[in-house]
Amino acid sequence: MEGTTKADQLRVVLVAPRNPLNIGAAARAMSNFGFSRLRVVNPYEVAYRDAKSAVGASPVLTDSQEFANVAEAIADCTLVVGTTAVKHRQLQQPLKVLADGAFAIKKRLTKSPVALLFGSEKWGLSNDALSHCHWVMHIPTRKEHQSMNLGQAVAICLYELARQKPARSALADRKTANSGTIERITQTLLAALRESEYINPKTGQLAEEKLRRMVRRMNLEAADAEILLGMLHKISWKLNQK
Amino acid sequence: MEGTTKADQLRVVLVAPRNPLNIGAAARAMSNFGFSRLRVVNPYEVAYRDAKSAVGASPVLTDSQEFANVAEAIADCTLVVGTTAVKHRQLQQPLKVLADGAFAIKKRLTKSPVALLFGSEKWGLSNDALSHCHWVMHIPTRKEHQSMNLGQAVAICLYELARQKPARSALADRKTANSGTIERITQTLLAALRESEYINPKTGQLAEEKLRRMVRRMNLEAADAEILLGMLHKISWKLNQK
Repeated sequence: MEGTTKADQLRVVLVAPRNPLNIGAAARAMSNFGFSRLRVVNPYEVAYRDAKSAVGASPVLTDSQEFANVAEAIADCTLVVGTTAVKHRQLQQPLKVLADGAFAIKKRLTKSPVALLFGSEKWGLSNDALSHCHWVMHIPTRKEHQSMNLGQAVAICLYELARQKPARSALADRKTANSGTIERITQTLLAALRESEYINPKTGQLAEEKLRRMVRRMNLEAADAEILLGMLHKISWKLNQK
Repeated sequence: MEGTTKADQLRVVLVAPRNPLNIGAAARAMSNFGFSRLRVVNPYEVAYRDAKSAVGASPVLTDSQEFANVAEAIADCTLVVGTTAVKHRQLQQPLKVLADGAFAIKKRLTKSPVALLFGSEKWGLSNDALSHCHWVMHIPTRKEHQSMNLGQAVAICLYELARQKPARSALADRKTANSGTIERITQTLLAALRESEYINPKTGQLAEEKLRRMVRRMNLEAADAEILLGMLHKISWKLNQK
């Protein structure tokens, strides 16, 4: 990828990886294509430790960061993209084929950090992890054998990201709210909805994921997001008062 | 890849592979992208046997053929292409970057068999193996870390071969909220903000206009707008209650 600045904006996020070889393979592909920011969420600890301490572990791997959950791993990103090779799941998010998705990601990378999420070898991304994603990118594989090896999936996505011509100069410099703010809006709105009995506490988890997706779809500008957050804080505070 | 005939014309040839995991990974990527003819030249026997007999070995692997040398493995092909991630070697053959090379290969596959050669994990293709190649295809990697994992290199090449013209991104039929709904959201939010004392009644007019513009900028989908309106009604009602 041309220009380290742009490549530096990408965070490759492995969610709940289980196999140290796959973690190592992901790191190696990152190094091949010039990406350096690896984040690992809730890994199988032994696997992560093994991968990090393996002879010849790449600097990408030794510099990688560990997070307890997806929300923390993506907090600084304004665009969060999930990946899947499997098509049959009932996705709530828009689906883009890899070539198109990579184009959109590259455009955003010229402006602000982007997270690219990969799920575990066995299950892919959970619905909870997906609820943090603006959209999902699909590697087009054969219908009869869709599920890809994790290290290969990472390699192909990064190849596609590194492959294309540099994106046309940034469109209007619209500064988008980052994921940390989106999450605070989600949580504050959630609190207000509970307080006002819009949400039944028993269906809380589902409601939270739906709400997060909805707030993401608003695609808020950074300044608007701060204002909205302030409004919701005030409303929530008032509801609590009584 | 469209049309099994075309994909059936490709022979993926692993020359002197050493690691059973890489042989398995190559086979898996082939299966993902719809290629079935795997040929293995002079493998490290234990590795090949292990890979073939592994639980869950793919049909591609179990149907693979073993050859004693490159000449026999490519005998039926009219085009032989080597692969390399490394650029510094003194190549006698023309070098094409992957995207261009894949285009040429696809054209030939419509007519006759093509061999795509991958070298051993450690050394790549030998000069002897390269001497059988019409040209060499290069995966563009970072200068400081060119050497790729074998399974990942195979996956990327096959992805590029299977890759179709970028499908025009079907801009999903996104139905946008109409102005009536936008206005109801604005008014309900305004009421809640007055009730919770976020808005000073004296600056009401300005606040209303700012709010309306902000709600417009959210560019809400019709369904989301209805949900948001319901939430705000409930919140506003609760604030009023007390």
